[in-house]
Parts: sequence; C-alpha cells; structure tokens
Amino acid sequence: MDVSEFTPSPEQYAFTFGGVAPVRRVRPGDALRLWSDDAFCGALRSVDDLPSARLNMPYVNPQTGPFYVEGAEPGDTLALHLVSLEPARDWGASSLIPFFGGMTSTDRVASLQPPLPETTWIYELDRSRQTVTFVASRSDHRIELPVEPMLGTVGVAPAAGEAHSSLVPERFGGNMDAPQVRAGATVYLGVNVEGALFSLGDGHYRQGEGEACGTAVEGAMTTTVLVELVKGVPTPWPRIEDDDAWMSVGSSRPMEDAWRIASRDMIGWFGDLFALDPLDGYQLLTQMAQVPVANVVDTNYSVVVKAAKSLLPQASAYGGLHADLRQRAAALGVG
Amino acid sequence: MDVSEFTPSPEQYAFTFGGVAPVRRVRPGDALRLWSDDAFCGALRSVDDLPSARLNMPYVNPQTGPFYVEGAEPGDTLALHLVSLEPARDWGASSLIPFFGGMTSTDRVASLQPPLPETTWIYELDRSRQTVTFVASRSDHRIELPVEPMLGTVGVAPAAGEAHSSLVPERFGGNMDAPQVRAGATVYLGVNVEGALFSLGDGHYRQGEGEACGTAVEGAMTTTVLVELVKGVPTPWPRIEDDDAWMSVGSSRPMEDAWRIASRDMIGWFGDLFALDPLDGYQLLTQMAQVPVANVVDTNYSVVVKAAKSLLPQASAYGGLHADLRQRAAALGVG
Amino acid sequence: MDVSEFTPSPEQYAFTFGGVAPVRRVRPGDALRLWSDDAFCGALRSVDDLPSARLNMPYVNPQTGPFYVEGAEPGDTLALHLVSLEPARDWGASSLIPFFGGMTSTDRVASLQPPLPETTWIYELDRSRQTVTFVASRSDHRIELPVEPMLGTVGVAPAAGEAHSSLVPERFGGNMDAPQVRAGATVYLGVNVEGALFSLGDGHYRQGEGEACGTAVEGAMTTTVLVELVKGVPTPWPRIEDDDAWMSVGSSRPMEDAWRIASRDMIGWFGDLFALDPLDGYQLLTQMAQVPVANVVDTNYSVVVKAAKSLLPQASAYGGLHADLRQRAAALGVG
Amino acid sequence: MDVSEFTPSPEQYAFTFGGVAPVRRVRPGDALRLWSDDAFCGALRSVDDLPSARLNMPYVNPQTGPFYVEGAEPGDTLALHLVSLEPARDWGASSLIPFFGGMTSTDRVASLQPPLPETTWIYELDRSRQTVTFVASRSDHRIELPVEPMLGTVGVAPAAGEAHSSLVPERFGGNMDAPQVRAGATVYLGVNVEGALFSLGDGHYRQGEGEACGTAVEGAMTTTVLVELVKGVPTPWPRIEDDDAWMSVGSSRPMEDAWRIASRDMIGWFGDLFALDPLDGYQLLTQMAQVPVANVVDTNYSVVVKAAKSLLPQASAYGGLHADLRQRAAALGVG
Repeated sequence: MDVSEFTPSPEQYAFTFGGVAPVRRVRPGDALRLWSDDAFCGALRSVDDLPSARLNMPYVNPQTGPFYVEGAEPGDTLALHLVSLEPARDWGASSLIPFFGGMTSTDRVASLQPPLPETTWIYELDRSRQTVTFVASRSDHRIELPVEPMLGTVGVAPAAGEAHSSLVPERFGGNMDAPQVRAGATVYLGVNVEGALFSLGDGHYRQGEGEACGTAVEGAMTTTVLVELVKGVPTPWPRIEDDDAWMSVGSSRPMEDAWRIASRDMIGWFGDLFALDPLDGYQLLTQMAQVPVANVVDTNYSVVVKAAKSLLPQASAYGGLHADLRQRAAALGVG
Repeated sequence: MDVSEFTPSPEQYAFTFGGVAPVRRVRPGDALRLWSDDAFCGALRSVDDLPSARLNMPYVNPQTGPFYVEGAEPGDTLALHLVSLEPARDWGASSLIPFFGGMTSTDRVASLQPPLPETTWIYELDRSRQTVTFVASRSDHRIELPVEPMLGTVGVAPAAGEAHSSLVPERFGGNMDAPQVRAGATVYLGVNVEGALFSLGDGHYRQGEGEACGTAVEGAMTTTVLVELVKGVPTPWPRIEDDDAWMSVGSSRPMEDAWRIASRDMIGWFGDLFALDPLDGYQLLTQMAQVPVANVVDTNYSVVVKAAKSLLPQASAYGGLHADLRQRAAALGVG
Repeated sequence: MDVSEFTPSPEQYAFTFGGVAPVRRVRPGDALRLWSDDAFCGALRSVDDLPSARLNMPYVNPQTGPFYVEGAEPGDTLALHLVSLEPARDWGASSLIPFFGGMTSTDRVASLQPPLPETTWIYELDRSRQTVTFVASRSDHRIELPVEPMLGTVGVAPAAGEAHSSLVPERFGGNMDAPQVRAGATVYLGVNVEGALFSLGDGHYRQGEGEACGTAVEGAMTTTVLVELVKGVPTPWPRIEDDDAWMSVGSSRPMEDAWRIASRDMIGWFGDLFALDPLDGYQLLTQMAQVPVANVVDTNYSVVVKAAKSLLPQASAYGGLHADLRQRAAALGVG
Repeated sequence: MDVSEFTPSPEQYAFTFGGVAPVRRVRPGDALRLWSDDAFCGALRSVDDLPSARLNMPYVNPQTGPFYVEGAEPGDTLALHLVSLEPARDWGASSLIPFFGGMTSTDRVASLQPPLPETTWIYELDRSRQTVTFVASRSDHRIELPVEPMLGTVGVAPAAGEAHSSLVPERFGGNMDAPQVRAGATVYLGVNVEGALFSLGDGHYRQGEGEACGTAVEGAMTTTVLVELVKGVPTPWPRIEDDDAWMSVGSSRPMEDAWRIASRDMIGWFGDLFALDPLDGYQLLTQMAQVPVANVVDTNYSVVVKAAKSLLPQASAYGGLHADLRQRAAALGVG
C-alpha cells in the first residue's frame, strides 16, 4: 500500500475544527504520512523566546488537515490508527503562557493576581538515547526523560455548523491532550459532517498526565496514520483502543463531568462488547477502571476512563477493526 | 518486635475523625495488627441485602481507632507504613445506595429523577487463586478479578475542634479511596492534635480508580501497620510513598481543585526533595506526572498526583523513612 | 428616524454565532424592528406537542440576523439598546426536554438515570392584564404571572473563525438567558470580526433567575433595537446598562467561574468609571454587588454581577451612550 | 415577655457547630438579646491592623452560643425569628486575607501565584445617617453606603457526631453569608441533636451578594431573636421566610450544586405549600425564582432560591409560624 504524504504550508494551518475547507480527499483504507508543526507554530526556539513576544494568539495549535474522507456521513465512525509518531525536530519546547495553565488563575478561573513569570524551557532530543532533557531555568538541574511521542490533538468537524478552536477538546475530539493517543492506538470519532473532515497535530515528545502548566514538550511531528470508516455505527464521544485497553475520553468542566461522560460511554460500550446491563456495567467498571487524567488546562478538561482487556472477557469492538489495523500497519513497515 | 493486635467491638467503631476518645495508646515504632469491619458494618451478606433495609445511615464506614500516638504534636508528621493487608472474610460486597455514587444524582448533585434501583453484588474470594468474582445481577456473566487489597480510609483527627464523618476525604486524610493505599506503602499525615488520633478502615479487596458506583469490593480487613513519627516536620495534605513513587493526594470539589491541591503539594515536595524552584517543579511535573483519579463519589473527590522515582534523581523523603520502614516491615515476617 | 423592519423566513434562521452570512447591512444609529421566532421554532403549540416529536434537534433557538454593522471592527464595542420588546404571539410555551435543564442529569452531568417525563406547558398571554398563566399539568392550579419580556439570546460573531451554537452563552454574548436583557437596557458586546455580525432572538415572555428547567415562557418577539458603535473601545465580556445599574455577565462552568469572570470585569469597569484601584474596586464590590444568577442550564452557566448606580458616584460609561440612547429611543415613540 | 440577655466572654466564643457545650438552656417562645463579636474577634481596628499579624487563625468567626433548646429533638425544626439587629460598635472592618476570597487563588483553588496584598478597610458607622463609609486605600474616594445589618452565620449542631468550623455553610446552616438573614426574617433549621444547640454571629453592617473578597463590613452585633420549635417537622436544608418571600439556601461546591440543592428544596416546599407536583413545581419555579448568590468565598458556596409571595397563591408555612412570630416580635417593642 502506498503512503501519501502531506506537509502543510503555514497558510494551510488549520486553527479550528469545522469552518475550514479540506486540504485533501482521502479514502477509507488510505495510509497518510503527515507533518504537523508544534503548538507554538515553531516560534519558541530558545529559552529567550517568550510567548507574549513570539506567539500570535489565538493562532496557536495549528492542525494538519482537514482531510475529507470519501463516503463518511453523519452517524458513521471514523477510525484513525496511529502507525507511528516520529519527532520531526531535534528539540521540543514548553512554556508558561500568562494566565494559561492549571496552577494559575486564567481567563475563566479569574483572579486579581498577576500572572506567573513567562518562562520557556527547551528540551533537546537525543535520538540515540530516545530522551528529551529537562533543563531547569532557575538552578542547574538537568533530568533526562524518555521520549514518548503522542498527539495532543485529533478531531473531526463538529455538527450543526459549529467551528471550534483547535485549543478545545470536545465531543468531536480536538485538544484532548491524552498521552494514550500514541503509536499503536486507534482513535474512534463520530462523524458529524459529510467527509468527516479530520485534522491532527499538537505533537508532544512527552507529556505528564494533566499537562499541568498547559504545554507539554511541544514538537513538530511526523505521523503515519491509517484511515478507516465504520459505516452506520455512531460514536458519541471519542474512544481509543490499543492492544491493552478500551478507553473513552470525556471533556467538560468541571472535571467530574469529563469523568461522568467517559464513564457513561464506557458503560454503554460494555453493553456493546459484552451484552452487560448498564447497572452491571457500572458495577464492573467500579472495580476495574483506570482513570488517568489527560488535561486540566484546556477550555474543557479531559479524563480517560480505561478498561484493561486483560481483566475482561474476549471481545471485539467495531468488528475487530483495531486488530485488523494493527496488521495492516505492520505490513506498512513504517515506524 | 512485637505486633500488638486490636479488634474493635461494634460499640468501639469510630464514625468520625475527631470527636472520639482513643481506644489505645501506641508509641512511634510500634507494629499493630488491626481488624476493621467493612464499610457496611458487615450488614450486606447476600444479593438480597439491600442498603436501605440493612444499613443504619449515616453509621457506615466504621473505623478502627483512634490510636493515640505518644509524643505526636501539631506540626509533626505521622507515618503509617502498611506492612500487609489480608482479607478477613471470604467475600466482599458492593452495592448501589440510593442517591450515592458517581453516575447518579445525589444529595448535592441534586435532580428530580428517581434513584437507580438498589442492587447488591457479592464477590466470593478465592484465596488460592487470589481472585474475587463479579457475578452480574441481570445476566449470567461471571468475571474473575485479581484481589488487590487496599484501605479506602486512613486519617487523623482534624484541627481546631472539628470532627468529620469517616465518609469524607480531606486534608486530614479520611476516605480518600485511593488504591495506592496498599501493602508496601507509607502514608504521611500531618498531625493536628496531640496524639494524632489516627484511625483506619474501609478495606477494599479491590477497587477501580474513581470508585464509580461509590462502593468497592468492600471487605473486612486485617491490616498490619508500622507507626512512626517525624517530629517538627509538617505535612499539609496526605502523601503516600512506595518503592516506585512519591504521591500527593488532594480532596475537594470540583475535582480540578483536588488536582490543584495535590499538584501544588507535589511541587512543594519537589522543592524539598530536589531543591527545585516552584516554576521549574511545575514544568517538570507537567512532563512526568501520573494522575490517577481516586474517587468521584465522596463528599470531596480525591485525585492522586504521582511522581515516578525512576524518572527523577535519587532523593530521600522524611529522612529516608520509607526505606527504613520497608526494612523493619521485612523483619516482621508478616504478610 | 426610520425604523427598518426585518422578519426572517425559516430558511433564514441562524443557529450559530459565526459562520453565517449577514442578512442585512446596518449603520450605527439605525433603528431596527426585528421579529424573532421562539426557541422551539414555533413547534410547541399545545400541551400535546412534546419536544422529542416536534423539535428538530439541535436546530432550536433560531436567531434573527446576523446584521453587518458598517464600520465595526475588532476592538470596537457594539451597543444594542433595546427600545421595546413586544410579544408577537398570544401564547408562550415551556417544556421539559429529555436530559436538558438544571434539575436533571444531562449530556454532560451524565448519570444512568432515565430522563424526567417530557411535559409541555402553554402559557396564554392576556394582553389587557399583561399576564401569562401557568396551568399545572398534574393538578388544577392556575397562576397568573406578570409579563416581563426579555431576550434570552443576543450576541456577535466570535473571534478567530469560531462558530458556536446559539444555545451557548460565551464571551461573545449568545444564550445568556439574563432577565436584565429587556426594554430600556443597553447591551455592550466586544466586536470580534468586521461588521460585528450580531443576531438576537429567544424571546421570553418571562423567566425566573436560573431558568431552572431550561426553557422559559418561550415566545415569538418583536424587538425594536437601536444600534450604536463605540470605536476603539474593547469590551472583553458582555455588559448591560440600564437606568439603575451597571452589569457584567460571565458565562462558564463551573458556575463560580461565571461569577469570577463577571466580578473581574466589573472591577475593571469600576477602574474606568471611578479611577478606582482594583483592590479598592474589589472591596467596594464586596459590599454592594447584587449577583442574580441568569441560567444554570446552558452549556455555560451565566451569572450577572450588578452595581446599583444609586450607591455609586455619578459616572458615565462609554461616553454617556446609554443616556443618549434612552433619549433617542424616546424620540422613536415606540413601545 | 422578658428578653434574656447574653454576652459571651472571649473564652466562651464558639468556633465550631457541634462539639461545644451549651452556654444556656432556653425554651421555645423565649426571646434572647445576644451580643456577638465580629468575625475578626475585634482584632482589626485600624487600616494598619493586618490579618496575618492580628488574627489567630483558624480561630475566627466566633459564635455566640450554643443554646440548648428544651424539647428539641432530631426531626424537629428550629425557627429563629430575627427581631432586630443593632450594630454594637461604631465601626466595621473588612480585610483581604491572604489566599482567602473569591478573586484570588486559595487553599483549594490552588495556584503558584503570590497572594494579593493584605489590606484592611475600616468603615465608620454614622448612626444618624444610618450609613457606613467606604474609604479607598489607594486613592481619595469616600463612598457612603446604607447600613443593612445581617448575620453571616447562624446554625445548629450537625448530625452524627460531626463538628464543623464556624467558617463553613452546610446543611446545618452555619456561615451562609446570606444578606436575607436580617431583621424581620425567620430562619428554619432542621434539628440534628437533642437541644438543637444553635449559635449565631458574624454580624455584617452590610454585605454585597457573593461577598467577593470574603469579608463583609464585619461588626459586633446585638441580635434580638425569638426561638420557636416545630415538633415532628423536619427541614432538610436551611430555609428563610420573610414577609415577602420563601427562600431555600443551598451550600456546596461547585456553585451549581448549591443552586441545585436549594431549587430541589424549594420544589419540595412548593409541594407542601401548594400541593404542587414536583414537575409542576419545577416549571413554576423556572418562571418566577429569584436567585441571589450569597457567598462564593467559603468552603462551600451558598445560593439563595427565593419565591416571591406576591406571585404565588396564599399559603402558610410551618403552620403560619412566621406571621405569628412577626406579631410576637412587634409586641416586644424592640429594634
């Protein structure tokens, strides 16, 4: 199978889900190799590059796309299998942006306090060691951390003529900032408009759960993705499947509602997978869920509810699509 | 070293942190072997035992204690090292209690909807297989799950004359329902009153993160615990240390505040452990925290912020107390 | 001055702020007389008309507009002075929509409980008595309530290419459901795009604060509005001025953040009006704010922070525009 | 009828609801004239008195009481009719306390930002003009505001052996900071323990809704109160009745839950007052509630849901007790 490549020019960067014309048409089954710029549009390259001077707010978190998927219609599910994520630069950046992040007052969690001092950290990537290095700004610490590439953002166009900033995680996916969106995972997204119009970006060379300060080790990324379509099967909120787990991602505020959304979705999924009654699914989930927080910094917060396959009976989601995509991915010989 | 035993009579069950006279005096260094009843006071023994008929609300979640620790004063830290947790019955119980749990309206998340149907599940414990078995109430599913014993509740008396229900997780510990409170872990709690007055209970034979329905596999437990005291070192919110991680536990509503509390505490702890400036600690935490949700069902919600030791420089907390307690625990030859 | 009229055809109904082409161009100073359909698109006309059968979700809350205001640019403030609001039908409707409202679980405050029963109430309007009548659905009560017409929704296009459902209250205005948006009030909205692109609708013949069940006495409305533009003066969040008070409206979740947004804005406004330092403004607001809740049912909740002019020194906002508009409105001889 | 007086010595100040022995026994029907110190224990007397130097945290908000009411048992309702509130000093104080208040990060809404600068404002009381004067700290503004005395705190002992700081508003009343608790109002509180054990304090010479900075115009107060008991009628959350309205007060976090609690309670009360079905009560409340926010600064936030008597059919709550107490109060010839 061919892998078609796409690198957007800066003029092609998409800053919303919805409201943007497609850059390409693709077909179910296609493999794409996509370059995405980092969330800062590559503008933070040294510790002296501060957000207020270098960023053109709110034009951050540029997405690569959208792609029009032939045959996709509302009520279908788009499956995006991440074959590989390769850091496309030798450094990543993270920064404290004034009034943005989880441990500061913000535009919405408003206070009268001044912002935290703007600070930028640059993480050098060591490809042989597969590490990025944290260098403290106010002391001499250097700490090597493993590279664990992921995509902060992947989504489709929302329904009903809406267009949302790529900074927002929502029902349509978007800026979920979930470390589980990594190579080997399949992301399922409900299709809201003809062609689905998916985009992706916001590569992170690594990110802790919660993404406390609001910016991960942000880095340009080359993503190889297999595109599939499940006709006639809706997916109400984003789901992720990998070899080890089924996952639902809820995004809302306050954070408990993100959890409620994802838990309800997983209980519904248990119904599909195992023919479990919702109350029994609720009980079973109570005893075996893993619940890693994804982000506490975006306009909505995101929480992952995860069910380990090893604890559950054998089952296939979406007709066994994930296993199938894993095989096709292996055949690609990428990553 | 001797291990002294204590099993409370039902009249000795403590239902608050604070406001209860100590059952025993202990000394730093003591090892205790404590029996605790389950959160239902043992009243749910079959699927026909429904909460509204069997429970004497709000007298649930009985604690074993409080214990007066000689020499403990406000401003100290109490360290409780969990040597072993042994299920003390051959079954655990979980139940849907009307208007309690995460996927229902509650006393506070009030709605006009009727409650979910009361339902009780009994989990048989297989000691040889080290499993408990989920038996669906509305179909024929049986799913074996590994036993992973933990304590839902451990805490000290609050400050300033307060007394809080054992159902509440707070600054003083309490009903955090964090699966990380298990054998091999050291729990650090700030002392608020002379003698600290700690209690523990709420054994869970296993629990998923979030404790979705509000009740885990609740079971009577025999807990062996080593008691230590760190004089003159305060601990503002509960912390947990095990061989793999440092952890802070925040409890509040909405859930993002539980995360904020724990993140701020961990950043402060990074300052102690590594002499990292708070902004550098914030950045480092952003890239490496694990954030498993503990509970989304209690009066406060609890979130664990976890820092893996393997990713960080070598460091000792509280003068290396955890490693020391591990050795002493091994010498006990228990569990 | 002429008053130009506009009544949209159903094909012209706007269901988003942003993403819709203008229906008319208007100039600062223009007076418009606008008909708007009710939030149900007129589909609920008897107590037997239930939402799930009659509504074409999510195509509800149709807006009249958008209007392109000549000369409006980002950074300006649009002022909309409501000269009169006249009920355009002889009845209003309110309805319990499944999983929508404040006293039910919802799409986001998710639970496993079934929805409340769908119910529709029709309120007959008595023009001579200026009342609408509540008729209980499950008993014989009839209670006459005064007509107090207001607009639930008024807003401009959001920034940065976004388009949001007309069900959402946000920084750009939208579905604030604030009873203070009534005849005699001036609404100030920051302009985000050329032409401002304002729309309005969602007439309520009356509404309690909070809009508990999610739908007020929804009714078609004829609104006479004076359009003005304040060049070069930004307005970060919606504000309302009437003869008695200055008001800021915050919209977010959780509800305390809606309050924080509005309070911060009012403190900033106090700085403009009185040259008060922010901390003094904070103190003054503490002792004299009125804080009526607007809605607890929309995707964001809205809170009004209100400062009574009678308690404060004489001052003029936006160059005395409100007083000027009041005079111009009187000269219109409408309403 | 005699009015018995009580002024606590500082050693008698109560800092919790629950856990404190009664200072007096009283009988239903008794009239009491009670002096209460201000929330700062009188320690802030000039603008140079800053909280961190003068306050003995957490020993603030001292209550006068508790009073043991003869015959009061769990399941009864205590009615406290406020006959008069008289400022007991010629000045009130308000202060910014570090990390306390609504427009700052706090202990729970944690951030890494430094606190706002400590500042104290002193409000001189002019008894002839019935005003207090705001004097800006950073400019020359002086603004006279009407005295509107109220009690920030009134409550009973909680159930089940709990004891809560007097800073907390809860189901048992406490620090609701609702301006509606003023002369002429009757406060209804459910009795949780024998004798009810009510206390009151936290006089405010005036307070805006929301109590933005966390401290009102705090002043010592002399309160004349009539005590009554309604046997066998429970009151689940605090209610207030005055000549104009029935009110329910909810206290929780996030703020929407405070509203939900109060709305559900009012719908239940509508059932008692008018035999309205809950869904009809929900609908009626939707169209006529007033929802003033009480506080957004305490450990729980408080919201008042208010139903104007003028809009509703004639009805009597608690057997017409409020009207009766009004008459008895008039006969006292106080205030």
